Amino acid sequence: MSPDASDRAAPIVTFLSDYGYDDEFVGVCHCVIARRCPAARIIDLGHGLAHRDVRAGALALRAALRYAPAGVHLAVVDPGVGSDRRALAMRTCDQARILVGPDNGLLLPAAAAFGGVSDAVDIADSPEALRPISATFHGRDVFAPVAAALADGVPMAAVGRTIGPETLVALELPAPSQERDAVHAHVLSIDGFGNVALDVEPATVTGAASLLLEVGGGQSAALLGHTFADVPPGELVAYTDSRGCLALAVNCGSAAARLGVGVDDELVLRAR
Amino acid sequence: MSPDASDRAAPIVTFLSDYGYDDEFVGVCHCVIARRCPAARIIDLGHGLAHRDVRAGALALRAALRYAPAGVHLAVVDPGVGSDRRALAMRTCDQARILVGPDNGLLLPAAAAFGGVSDAVDIADSPEALRPISATFHGRDVFAPVAAALADGVPMAAVGRTIGPETLVALELPAPSQERDAVHAHVLSIDGFGNVALDVEPATVTGAASLLLEVGGGQSAALLGHTFADVPPGELVAYTDSRGCLALAVNCGSAAARLGVGVDDELVLRAR
Amino acid sequence: MSPDASDRAAPIVTFLSDYGYDDEFVGVCHCVIARRCPAARIIDLGHGLAHRDVRAGALALRAALRYAPAGVHLAVVDPGVGSDRRALAMRTCDQARILVGPDNGLLLPAAAAFGGVSDAVDIADSPEALRPISATFHGRDVFAPVAAALADGVPMAAVGRTIGPETLVALELPAPSQERDAVHAHVLSIDGFGNVALDVEPATVTGAASLLLEVGGGQSAALLGHTFADVPPGELVAYTDSRGCLALAVNCGSAAARLGVGVDDELVLRAR
Repeated sequence: MSPDASDRAAPIVTFLSDYGYDDEFVGVCHCVIARRCPAARIIDLGHGLAHRDVRAGALALRAALRYAPAGVHLAVVDPGVGSDRRALAMRTCDQARILVGPDNGLLLPAAAAFGGVSDAVDIADSPEALRPISATFHGRDVFAPVAAALADGVPMAAVGRTIGPETLVALELPAPSQERDAVHAHVLSIDGFGNVALDVEPATVTGAASLLLEVGGGQSAALLGHTFADVPPGELVAYTDSRGCLALAVNCGSAAARLGVGVDDELVLRAR
Repeated sequence: MSPDASDRAAPIVTFLSDYGYDDEFVGVCHCVIARRCPAARIIDLGHGLAHRDVRAGALALRAALRYAPAGVHLAVVDPGVGSDRRALAMRTCDQARILVGPDNGLLLPAAAAFGGVSDAVDIADSPEALRPISATFHGRDVFAPVAAALADGVPMAAVGRTIGPETLVALELPAPSQERDAVHAHVLSIDGFGNVALDVEPATVTGAASLLLEVGGGQSAALLGHTFADVPPGELVAYTDSRGCLALAVNCGSAAARLGVGVDDELVLRAR
Repeated sequence: MSPDASDRAAPIVTFLSDYGYDDEFVGVCHCVIARRCPAARIIDLGHGLAHRDVRAGALALRAALRYAPAGVHLAVVDPGVGSDRRALAMRTCDQARILVGPDNGLLLPAAAAFGGVSDAVDIADSPEALRPISATFHGRDVFAPVAAALADGVPMAAVGRTIGPETLVALELPAPSQERDAVHAHVLSIDGFGNVALDVEPATVTGAASLLLEVGGGQSAALLGHTFADVPPGELVAYTDSRGCLALAVNCGSAAARLGVGVDDELVLRAR
């Protein structure tokens, strides 16, 4: 990299949380980062995620980091703040990204998309933390200052105590299975419109014209389409959602209500 | 521009959408822009606009761009995403601004404020788009990367296929008319407080002390004032709103409810 | 400051308001600042504060500025916009910060944390204001452009008319008092979870194991802890909140409801 290019490329800190927009919490974290690493460019990935929903945060982080410039990736959805859960900085196996956040599974699906975790440190008592460390706002006192220090070039080993990647708390996510002509899929998430994301890659059903769905003792058929409008209002459609998952929708309606499913429920899919 | 000034003036990308703040959509578009044009400065104009309301988006964009630095102006309120509606980049006649968004009328009122559209390209199949182009998230896959490329200096002709400005989809907006001493005005928008913005410039009624309003067979009088508090609680006032429109309010109440009007309804105004 | 450091350290403008996220108001203020002082880095401290609640804004601003880089600090919670309330820029006694906002007490608690106000100007008719000055959007027309001018290096005396710091409108905040073994405290604010922040520093009760609370003729006991989970569900805990105040919570419940208190109510605390 030429000196000129290095001038222009500010270190990147992305930031995702469930802090919401009603108070000063997100802004305070920006301040902490700006003081510790004035050169860093902060990109907000979103702070309106469902409160304390670690899985929703993990799925959003994984979806967003596919598009993010390499850098330090701060994420805080942390219902265990103040307990003895560990606080983490972890480097991905591609060596290009460092993820910072609580040890509750939030970071691992995103890390997996970059080859997994090569090394990790526990930063709960980091020398970079702001002291006294509050019991309720580790975003400000631990995660943001450590993320900023890492963006400023401080090595991982200097911000925390080395821990084994195999000891990290995993997120419980369903996993699909295949049995002859049937795929046993699960509901990964449901959005505000009742659209149902499954834990299945669209490639699994490539070439099919429609899917037969078995769920809760009943059967339904869904056309394979590109978007809601590919079926008449009230009809089921299977499509690839914006995060790249196979998903089910009812045009102008709620697929979750139609199918009577919730998060983690199993559906059996058969291509037709 | 001196080299020094050029160093300081980052290319501007403004960004307005109805994506809301509950998920990672806005953040992902920031990431896409930051990767394609790291030097760009992104200014969010707001992402909490009424969902799928193209007219509300068009009015907000027009109001905001009056104050925005010249640059590339990305706007996405796009109920037709995934259909065959065109995707646009258009240059304004003052040659200073490029607007990027769907061909549904969203951009045209703002462009008109800068002299109209001098040239336009269809970017639905742009070489700058991220592929595969999803059916539901053209903000990420088409609009953001093209806006970033334009901010990076790529010429219009290289990001899409030239189309005639006269073929662009117009937004249906009411237009006022004058008849002797009466102005036939229409409701442009109603805000959360029930304040009613009209399609009339305040200059139309300069010098009057009050307005006689005819609407729905009834009559009301509104004092001409500067702000709500110029009339007692419960009374009607006509004033210039922050977007520069003549507007009607009830101090501590709802003018829309009082007058029984909705968007596009006609009122006849007579200055007194 | 070396030329190199000066290159890297953009002037800081922090921005806090109650404008919310439903329209273009915050974005328009960003545009105004970016045009007047392109070099400024804007840090949003939050715009979702309770609408027109000056005290809530003042407490959030004070809490946030403890962590903010020194600079110009713009804050707008302004129920008196359009009236004859003054508009202010004030320098703190440490000479490091300039606060900009309405003369309604919003800025003073934050200024006090930096030694108080050394000098102030009324900017209601500032030469830096955008004209015509609207009656309802002084954030855009007065506060943002003046904040940007100050960030750009324009001296205080050039943006307004000097006024005496002793003439500034104070915010009515309760003040605790001590009487033998009892602290007369007051409710400073109540958050969405019913947690009750008091106008008492945690140091006041250091060393105690629990607190006896007298309020509204009744008595309650609260364990002194670090976080909610230090007591069983349904029990009262006293702790230091993230803003550094002594606060009361009910684990998995509402302390405000349990104690029957509202903002400004008095509680008598006795350490045990």
